[in-house]
Formats: sequence, structure tokens, C-alpha cells
Amino acid sequence: MINPAVEEPVERPGAVHNLHRVHVLWPDCDPAGILFYGHYFRWMDDATYFLFERAGLRKTRLMADYGVPGIPLVSAHADFRSPARFGEVLTVESHVSQCGTRSFTVTHVFREGERVTAEGWEKRIWCKADPADPARLTPLPVPAEVRAALGVA
Amino acid sequence: MINPAVEEPVERPGAVHNLHRVHVLWPDCDPAGILFYGHYFRWMDDATYFLFERAGLRKTRLMADYGVPGIPLVSAHADFRSPARFGEVLTVESHVSQCGTRSFTVTHVFREGERVTAEGWEKRIWCKADPADPARLTPLPVPAEVRAALGVA
Amino acid sequence: MINPAVEEPVERPGAVHNLHRVHVLWPDCDPAGILFYGHYFRWMDDATYFLFERAGLRKTRLMADYGVPGIPLVSAHADFRSPARFGEVLTVESHVSQCGTRSFTVTHVFREGERVTAEGWEKRIWCKADPADPARLTPLPVPAEVRAALGVA
Amino acid sequence: MINPAVEEPVERPGAVHNLHRVHVLWPDCDPAGILFYGHYFRWMDDATYFLFERAGLRKTRLMADYGVPGIPLVSAHADFRSPARFGEVLTVESHVSQCGTRSFTVTHVFREGERVTAEGWEKRIWCKADPADPARLTPLPVPAEVRAALGVA
Repeated sequence: MINPAVEEPVERPGAVHNLHRVHVLWPDCDPAGILFYGHYFRWMDDATYFLFERAGLRKTRLMADYGVPGIPLVSAHADFRSPARFGEVLTVESHVSQCGTRSFTVTHVFREGERVTAEGWEKRIWCKADPADPARLTPLPVPAEVRAALGVA
Repeated sequence: MINPAVEEPVERPGAVHNLHRVHVLWPDCDPAGILFYGHYFRWMDDATYFLFERAGLRKTRLMADYGVPGIPLVSAHADFRSPARFGEVLTVESHVSQCGTRSFTVTHVFREGERVTAEGWEKRIWCKADPADPARLTPLPVPAEVRAALGVA
Repeated sequence: MINPAVEEPVERPGAVHNLHRVHVLWPDCDPAGILFYGHYFRWMDDATYFLFERAGLRKTRLMADYGVPGIPLVSAHADFRSPARFGEVLTVESHVSQCGTRSFTVTHVFREGERVTAEGWEKRIWCKADPADPARLTPLPVPAEVRAALGVA
Repeated sequence: MINPAVEEPVERPGAVHNLHRVHVLWPDCDPAGILFYGHYFRWMDDATYFLFERAGLRKTRLMADYGVPGIPLVSAHADFRSPARFGEVLTVESHVSQCGTRSFTVTHVFREGERVTAEGWEKRIWCKADPADPARLTPLPVPAEVRAALGVA
């Protein structure tokens, strides 16, 4: 049930990196006064959006140009290193750490100053959806120009 | 950076299982008309709450009796098998799949009917917080009565 | 800028009422240990979904049968009477309290036992969207069978 | 049940205004492709945080200096003028529009360029919490230096 074969990422020296800032605000924190862990996954999705934007791949344009219904996830994972507190400002550093034919992995590191609070990754597929049922997805090769823009050609 | 050594879970035959129902509602779904993946992590946290409640371990009571500041996470992981659509009702089946000295893993399977939409796990630690700084956590042994109640004594 | 003319609701004796239960869970609560107010609006949207479902008006069916892009809001309002605490279970009672030609108001009361924690309302319009731009909405008369099903014919 | 006496705001010419930017991202949008309304309330809470920060009133400092358990809400209201679409960037302009003895109102206007997408307000109270039960709140006069910092002395 649990995927034992988590692929070892192959770091790409030319991969585009993006830095994005996140404020740990009041509704993000729980009664223990620390960030609720689930928000990191929301923030990884946001950080991927901004990484793609930095690479010139605005999501609305990808959807219009390639007909992709978003860039759905196969897996997501995070390791929580140090609790983040209300009022802290985190920096997320994101890049594509692995790129296969039809899928790729985006890795994210969250830091408050030098301290790593969490790190995680999202494995996403390039695909099209069945017009009659948006939940039926057919994987497709990641376009060469998308790989090039992300620095993982 | 990515944890290569994801521990193989050792299933416990006597572990308490809980079923919890989740509605995939309008604000949970994205412009592609399918469930946004981040919500699964929120729902795993909820499902752990209900698993503990079923085991007689209401979180408010645990916090009062043991002084634990919640049950913080070390890692979380999910694999997305099939997109969930707006209006679907999912069943989450949850149980403790592994229990170490100071940490344990809760595994969750989300199904719509027979179809698995996602499965994931949370690795959590039993700990106390520094009264002066709730983000400073000291791991402690999982109490014997907590393990017994969860069926992983 | 602030709407001074909040319309006095005209209660409809025959309106369908629905009761829906909400758990105040860990990520819903803030560092003060109480429910973050914004979640009430999410829960009002959910409660409207369940009110419509009880009235035989499942949202997916309305979208398919009438081509409505959801039931967008014009205004929303809530008064917070008593803070809700982590672990409490609230009951939401919902009904259509006012129905105009192209819009209607859904009123919601949240209670923990006898204690009212919050009450609020949503003013929604019946409309269709421009196929070329889902954000361009044209109001339409609320269909007679929808009014009848909600008990506000 | 619905508050008929919504107080007319008395605009304060000297009130501090703050501008805050919000991205309308993928998980914020619903299957209709537009922003889910409930997020505006979350963003109003965030915008109040940043307004206070701009006024030199960082929330963590207020909590430490005055012992306030946050700044709880009595009421919240929003009018939705024009749907916001995925990928748009909104500007929120916030200021204290009314200040009573123990409560004050923060008004927020959301704009995409010149177009107003929503406007709303939050009525909040200055209070202390019962140490034994954080949900028991006692209203207190808004401190003179807090009023002065917000430009509503």
C-alpha cells in the first residue's frame, strides 16, 4: 500500500530555481500555536505555480496552449524538520529535480532564515483529460519546450 | 534532501480500524472539476482524530491528561490513484500501521465505492512542548495505554 | 461602500429546513484555541449544498439540467455570538429565508447544543455564465420547480 | 436573527490605509473556474494583520504586550461585485472605518486593476480571555496608543 520504491531524485544542474515567500498567518496555525502541516502541501502547489511562471510557463497559458487540465499529481511527500510559528516568514525554494517522459518531480525546501522547517516534493504528470469526464486522464510526453523552459531539457 | 529510506510498514493484525466519510464539496474542487490534492492531507489529519476518538483517545483528553501539544508530524505522504470528482462521497479507512517507541504511522485509504482514489500515511511523534516555546518539542515514549487502545501494544 | 440597506428577511412558513453537523477540528482552530471565523462561510456554502440536496436539488444535477455555473453569491454576512472550541460539534440549521425573482437568501444558524455560536446568510443569484468567460454572469429567474422544491414557491 | 441595524460607518480621514496583494491561485478557484467566495474572509483576516503590521502593531507583540487572545470578530460582511478568475492578482485596500470604545470595524476593498471584485468589513472587539477557558471573552477599551497607531484616535 505504501510505495516502497520512492525514486532517488537525479538533480539537474541547469534546473530553474524559484524563491517564493510565505507568511505563516493566524488561520494557518493550530491551537498548539504552530503551523498546521497540511498547509505545506497547498504551499507546494502554489510554489510550483510560481516556479512555472518564472520559467515563462504561466498555467493559464499552458491550459490554453496545450489543453492540459492542470498538472495533476501522482504522489506528494513532505518531511517536517522544525515547527513554524505564527508570524514567521518562510522562503520556499523550488525546482524540477527529476524529469521523466510523462512525469516530473518538483522539490521544495521551506526555510525561516537558515533553519529548514520542511522539505517535500510533488510528482506530477503531463496529461490531457477526456472532455466528457475531466477525471479521466491520459498521460502524454512532457513537451520539449516545457522541459527546456524549466532547465531540464 | 528527499528521504530515500521510507520504512516498510509492519502491519499489525490487531490494530483498530476506523471508517470516516468525506464529501467532496464545491470549494474542495479546482477549475479542472476535480478534488485539489492538498485536501487529502487535511482529511488524513481529521481521520486520525476520528480513529483516536474511536479508540477512546479523544484529542482534548489526551492534551489534558498527558500535556501533549497535539501529535506533531515528522512526515506525510500520499499517492493519488484516481481523481475524485465534485459530489462524490469518499470513505477513509484508517489505522496505525506501525508503532515505534516515540513515533507511529497512521495509514489512510480513500475509496469511492470499490475504487481507491488515494492512499497515504502520516508519521507522528509523541512529545511534549517547551512551555516557553510551543515549537520546541521533546519526543517521549508512546504511553502503553495509548498503544493498547490503538491495538498496537 | 458598506450596504446600509440590508433587507429584512421575510420568513416563509413552508420553507424546507435542513440540519447538518460540523465538527470543529484541529486545523479549524487558531492559536487562541477557538474556531477561525472564516470557516463559517465555507460551512454555510456546504450547508446550502446539503439543504439543496435534501430538497432534491443536487448541485451536479442543477448544473447539468439548467446549465448554471454554481449558484454565485452577491453578499454574505455572519454574526458571531459565542466562540466555538476545538472538539465541539455544531449543528447548522439552514433554509431559504427570502426568495426574489432572480436571487434568494439562505439563512444558517450554528448551535452547540442550545447555545448559538453564529448565524449568517448568503444572498445568491440564479444565473448562466458566458461560455467564453465563466466570470461573466447573466441573472435569470429562479425556476418555479426550484422554488417549489425549496418550499418558497 | 439577522442584524437589521448595521451601523453606518463614519469614515475617519486620518485612518492608516494599507495595500496588500493576493494571488487568485488554483486551489482558491472552484469548478466554475472562479474564486470561491469564502476565501475573501480569510483574506480580510490576513489584510487586517498586514494593516496592523503597517501601523506598527504586530499581532504577536499585541498578544504579548496586552494579553489579547487575537482580536475576535463580532460580525463580518462582504459584497461580491465581480467574479475573480484563476490567475488574477487582487489588491486589497484596508483601513479602520469606525472605532467605538470596545470595538472597531476594518473595511476592505478588493480590486483587480480598477475593477472592484469585492468589498467587505469585519467588526472586531478588543478583549481579554479567561485563562481557564479561551472562549470566554471580556470586552475592554481599545487602548489609546492602538487607536493612535491606526489613525483613529
